[in-house]
Amino acid sequence: MIDAPRIGVLEPGPRDSIADVSGVTVGHLTLAAGPVQTGVTVVRPHAGDLYREPVPAASVVVNGFGKTIGLVQLDELGLLESPIALTNTFAVGTIATAMIRHALSANRSIGRTSPTLNPVVAECNDGWLNDLHAFAIDERHYASAFEAATQDFMQGAVGAGRGMSCFELKGGIGSASRVAATGEAHVVGALVLANFGRLAQLTLCGVPIGQTLAGRTRALRAEHGSIVVVLATDAPLDPRQLRRLGVRASAGIARTGANFAHGSGDIVIAFSAAEPFVRGAPAPPRRTLRDDALDGLFDATAEATEQAIVHALFAAQTVEGRDGHVRDAITARVPDWRVHFR
Amino acid sequence: MIDAPRIGVLEPGPRDSIADVSGVTVGHLTLAAGPVQTGVTVVRPHAGDLYREPVPAASVVVNGFGKTIGLVQLDELGLLESPIALTNTFAVGTIATAMIRHALSANRSIGRTSPTLNPVVAECNDGWLNDLHAFAIDERHYASAFEAATQDFMQGAVGAGRGMSCFELKGGIGSASRVAATGEAHVVGALVLANFGRLAQLTLCGVPIGQTLAGRTRALRAEHGSIVVVLATDAPLDPRQLRRLGVRASAGIARTGANFAHGSGDIVIAFSAAEPFVRGAPAPPRRTLRDDALDGLFDATAEATEQAIVHALFAAQTVEGRDGHVRDAITARVPDWRVHFR
Amino acid sequence: MIDAPRIGVLEPGPRDSIADVSGVTVGHLTLAAGPVQTGVTVVRPHAGDLYREPVPAASVVVNGFGKTIGLVQLDELGLLESPIALTNTFAVGTIATAMIRHALSANRSIGRTSPTLNPVVAECNDGWLNDLHAFAIDERHYASAFEAATQDFMQGAVGAGRGMSCFELKGGIGSASRVAATGEAHVVGALVLANFGRLAQLTLCGVPIGQTLAGRTRALRAEHGSIVVVLATDAPLDPRQLRRLGVRASAGIARTGANFAHGSGDIVIAFSAAEPFVRGAPAPPRRTLRDDALDGLFDATAEATEQAIVHALFAAQTVEGRDGHVRDAITARVPDWRVHFR
Amino acid sequence: MIDAPRIGVLEPGPRDSIADVSGVTVGHLTLAAGPVQTGVTVVRPHAGDLYREPVPAASVVVNGFGKTIGLVQLDELGLLESPIALTNTFAVGTIATAMIRHALSANRSIGRTSPTLNPVVAECNDGWLNDLHAFAIDERHYASAFEAATQDFMQGAVGAGRGMSCFELKGGIGSASRVAATGEAHVVGALVLANFGRLAQLTLCGVPIGQTLAGRTRALRAEHGSIVVVLATDAPLDPRQLRRLGVRASAGIARTGANFAHGSGDIVIAFSAAEPFVRGAPAPPRRTLRDDALDGLFDATAEATEQAIVHALFAAQTVEGRDGHVRDAITARVPDWRVHFR
Repeated sequence: MIDAPRIGVLEPGPRDSIADVSGVTVGHLTLAAGPVQTGVTVVRPHAGDLYREPVPAASVVVNGFGKTIGLVQLDELGLLESPIALTNTFAVGTIATAMIRHALSANRSIGRTSPTLNPVVAECNDGWLNDLHAFAIDERHYASAFEAATQDFMQGAVGAGRGMSCFELKGGIGSASRVAATGEAHVVGALVLANFGRLAQLTLCGVPIGQTLAGRTRALRAEHGSIVVVLATDAPLDPRQLRRLGVRASAGIARTGANFAHGSGDIVIAFSAAEPFVRGAPAPPRRTLRDDALDGLFDATAEATEQAIVHALFAAQTVEGRDGHVRDAITARVPDWRVHFR
Repeated sequence: MIDAPRIGVLEPGPRDSIADVSGVTVGHLTLAAGPVQTGVTVVRPHAGDLYREPVPAASVVVNGFGKTIGLVQLDELGLLESPIALTNTFAVGTIATAMIRHALSANRSIGRTSPTLNPVVAECNDGWLNDLHAFAIDERHYASAFEAATQDFMQGAVGAGRGMSCFELKGGIGSASRVAATGEAHVVGALVLANFGRLAQLTLCGVPIGQTLAGRTRALRAEHGSIVVVLATDAPLDPRQLRRLGVRASAGIARTGANFAHGSGDIVIAFSAAEPFVRGAPAPPRRTLRDDALDGLFDATAEATEQAIVHALFAAQTVEGRDGHVRDAITARVPDWRVHFR
Repeated sequence: MIDAPRIGVLEPGPRDSIADVSGVTVGHLTLAAGPVQTGVTVVRPHAGDLYREPVPAASVVVNGFGKTIGLVQLDELGLLESPIALTNTFAVGTIATAMIRHALSANRSIGRTSPTLNPVVAECNDGWLNDLHAFAIDERHYASAFEAATQDFMQGAVGAGRGMSCFELKGGIGSASRVAATGEAHVVGALVLANFGRLAQLTLCGVPIGQTLAGRTRALRAEHGSIVVVLATDAPLDPRQLRRLGVRASAGIARTGANFAHGSGDIVIAFSAAEPFVRGAPAPPRRTLRDDALDGLFDATAEATEQAIVHALFAAQTVEGRDGHVRDAITARVPDWRVHFR
Repeated sequence: MIDAPRIGVLEPGPRDSIADVSGVTVGHLTLAAGPVQTGVTVVRPHAGDLYREPVPAASVVVNGFGKTIGLVQLDELGLLESPIALTNTFAVGTIATAMIRHALSANRSIGRTSPTLNPVVAECNDGWLNDLHAFAIDERHYASAFEAATQDFMQGAVGAGRGMSCFELKGGIGSASRVAATGEAHVVGALVLANFGRLAQLTLCGVPIGQTLAGRTRALRAEHGSIVVVLATDAPLDPRQLRRLGVRASAGIARTGANFAHGSGDIVIAFSAAEPFVRGAPAPPRRTLRDDALDGLFDATAEATEQAIVHALFAAQTVEGRDGHVRDAITARVPDWRVHFR
């Protein structure tokens, strides 16, 4: 477990990560060599083939300054038919192509007798630490991250999070989960690629600690951050309800102090792992929760998202990247967080 | 000024209310007699005739469990051509009709040779304190509220806020303003009709005081709250930019502890008072801010919205309504807030 | 049956109206006295109480120059919990209030212990024939239309259609149905309130007959038309799929020659009558069609919508309204349509 | 000029193509060798660098079964900051990466001190004629198409249109323009990548000729067609207005007989070439048309879109692709179209 302040009042799942949603795994491919500080992270909704067994999904664009691929079809059909890949801004095209090839290798009918794949790739700009111009990500990195997927994945400066900055500190991958306290006891897991925020606004457990920290740091700020939030739940929700869930992730982001800055692509992708569809098979009746039973899941979403961001910060190590750029880990600036927070 | 905790770091305008946006005034009509605890509040973007001189506007539906009237056309055309009226859920039809008659009295061509009016009416459900079944609001109440509009309006349990509850305490009308600290020094004003929230989640200045308070109160919760946020700015923004501004109000709501509950109609309407249009006249070139100059306004929006909610709570008095229902003012529960907050 | 050109290739249901969807009925209240030429039309999705047994629904705003009430909540929850009322632009508030009172009379808990009603009211501007300033519609007219609902309802210059104009001819209420030819044999019914279009653009069965007719008529055009399309189906569709269905109504509108003019509020509301929900009851598993089985329904939607508009024109009689304004029936201008069309 | 039926009543510009909008050029790269029948088409809004001088833009997703890249940011900011590239479904990632490299070569600050590029790439599935599994498109093909851009570009089975099918006939690239007849005399140009439709539904000039043709052809249908519509205008429109323009393209599509089939990604991207922005420079006041002056442009949009589809069909030649698959040109099936149409 990550040594970090505990957000909110709800209980986390046993791993306090998105892997508390049964079947969900996460894999990383990390490149960390001098000016190249970047990577790929893959979230797999289940162990099977997503093209054959897609899951209900929806997206929410809180602030659309971002280059995510695949949301048009995901929202029209309410289906996620690929894993969700996260990477740097310049690599989305390469990873999308890699995902198509990967799906083709298992399904030769794609693009012949069955529909083409809709790969979902989200990104943040890690160009302050990482030399984007090196185009270091290649297609093979997708398969590496895919195959590395596990319930017990690393957080912080790994995978797509390797070069990311958050509140002008080291950011990256974070994850958390919460169990709904009202309605049925379903779990919501969040995984974030955290690359957003100005230090002066950083708020942890309601404490505006960024105001203190910013006094001691340079005014320099990442000019184009972003945050991608992946939400998973074992609750049986349809795409309309998943979109409603996604909106509540924005509450979690807000409580860390950010106001969805102009240049920040703040994107949420939510899926239900409860019951995949089977492509080409008849659709049996499906159970979904009633909308008036969603409040517990909404609370869990907001808390899990906020906690995932906190985990991204506290799991990260200090990283030096291109041109001598360094991002300090928050643990280097706040050595004993228990002094400040609950 | 309202004696209440101060939110955030930005400077408010001289009134710390939406009336800090030049030209904006607010009027109330309050009904407070036994089981009837309700009213009407009117926000006037400028002193003129909105039908003749509409203003750029946009809406954001954070959670659509609400009965607001007028958003379809407002968003298609990016225009607000009436004042914004707030009232209880059962009165929106009556007030919309009243607004049409009011506009007709000044513009006889409406519905004959010029287009019909698009009245904008938002609402919350005050049925816990107010006897909604009495249908106490009639058309004349709109004109009364309209004519009462002033820069120095009351807050708390007045106007449309008379019967509203917020975090299971007395809510109602609140307002605040903030001056953007980056970019141009424009002001953003917020006015809220606050009728949302569960006490256990109430957070003030980052402090989860609701957890303490809820221990001492009944578990009863308002089952169908809502919040309407009206945003005004003197910055020259177009409707697309105003929609972006509106999204940031959700950050302010979130910081009070709410997660946009299922049954809460969380609606934002934003307008720019910088430069009205003139119906029927040629459209001269217009200046609008660059999008990369919006961050200061985004921060101001989030802070003004959160402060407006805090003002609604701290300006409210305890109200007893139908069937012996009572909502305590927060000041009755937290007599000396300076003990708890900055 | 209405004597009118037959649109398309699909089979209509036995009534060729929205009442071919099992359970759907339509009622009118018509006011026709000198300058007052207006009314109310109510579409009832089933014979029961919609508040207790709401149906899945969605809306599509093709062009939002309109004052429809109720779409915000309808789209958030994907539920229609009232009949759909159609009337003139100035009467939407009055009818919305009437619908609340009507629901209250059967459900006293509304606004006390159960949620408030979300009435859905759509409108067109009949101000060229009807004296809008008379505000002739009152609350009782809603109940009259509601109680008059029948499978065998009138079309043309009746109910809300009494004062409407379409392609500068007499418009009003039209309805049609089509049976899907691919996938399962479900029926789609359309009911339109047709008040849109410029004569010169009128196209019937692909023939641009309006070009001919416009040569013989005055250039005068209704400056603020609109069309409301209500779609019903007995196919089990969820709200996301119903929204997809609604988009296809725009194809039917387009084929009559209109291009969704700036001043035309072109609104579609679609519901599935297959299986209502039961408020407060556990949600059993539900069957919905697969998306790749929707094409037959999409074709049926486009054809039924176009045919409904044609029915509105051919069912209408010539009407004289306020200030000597007259709208000719198309049958007065094209006495023998079989000369021109298939 | 293309020998094809003439759609509608409005006047085309001198080229009857999108190049009638001043500054707009189009370039193709075509691969036609045995089973490889595909390509890239680039629409350049002006001759300059789009990253430095972006143009106002908006998108409309009529049916979202498609993999277009770049719409999230385009709609958030209302800006097009790259050319629009069209290609096959499997090549979008490769072309997006090529566009980033291309922009970098002229702007080394991208991803370092200035924001990353948002490349816009749209696609259709040409997998019936083209061997998608060959991944024949590589990054250099983008630059080739870009550099080939000219006002006098080819239509039909060229560029991205090489392998596309339309109404089970040979489709591809088509373009047309129309001059607005009401309001100011601005021109709207459309360019389509036409890969949609079932033959039995094909309608030309209102004549359902597909019903006749389908009798003589195999029942086979393209299972995953799509249409991308690029709209350009010299009218000064803002993004909200451009979105309104884009909606009207759907009327043009509908009149060719299609109902936006489930599997068809029907996407519209509209931009104004009237006055580019200048990145980093102060924003001077801008003129935009009044909304009530848009009807002429709406009519022009619908006609230009329909005509562009007709041009795609009539400009195309018969193509044989992978596995002996052949798509006949419509001119092979309807040798003398003047027999059938105006």
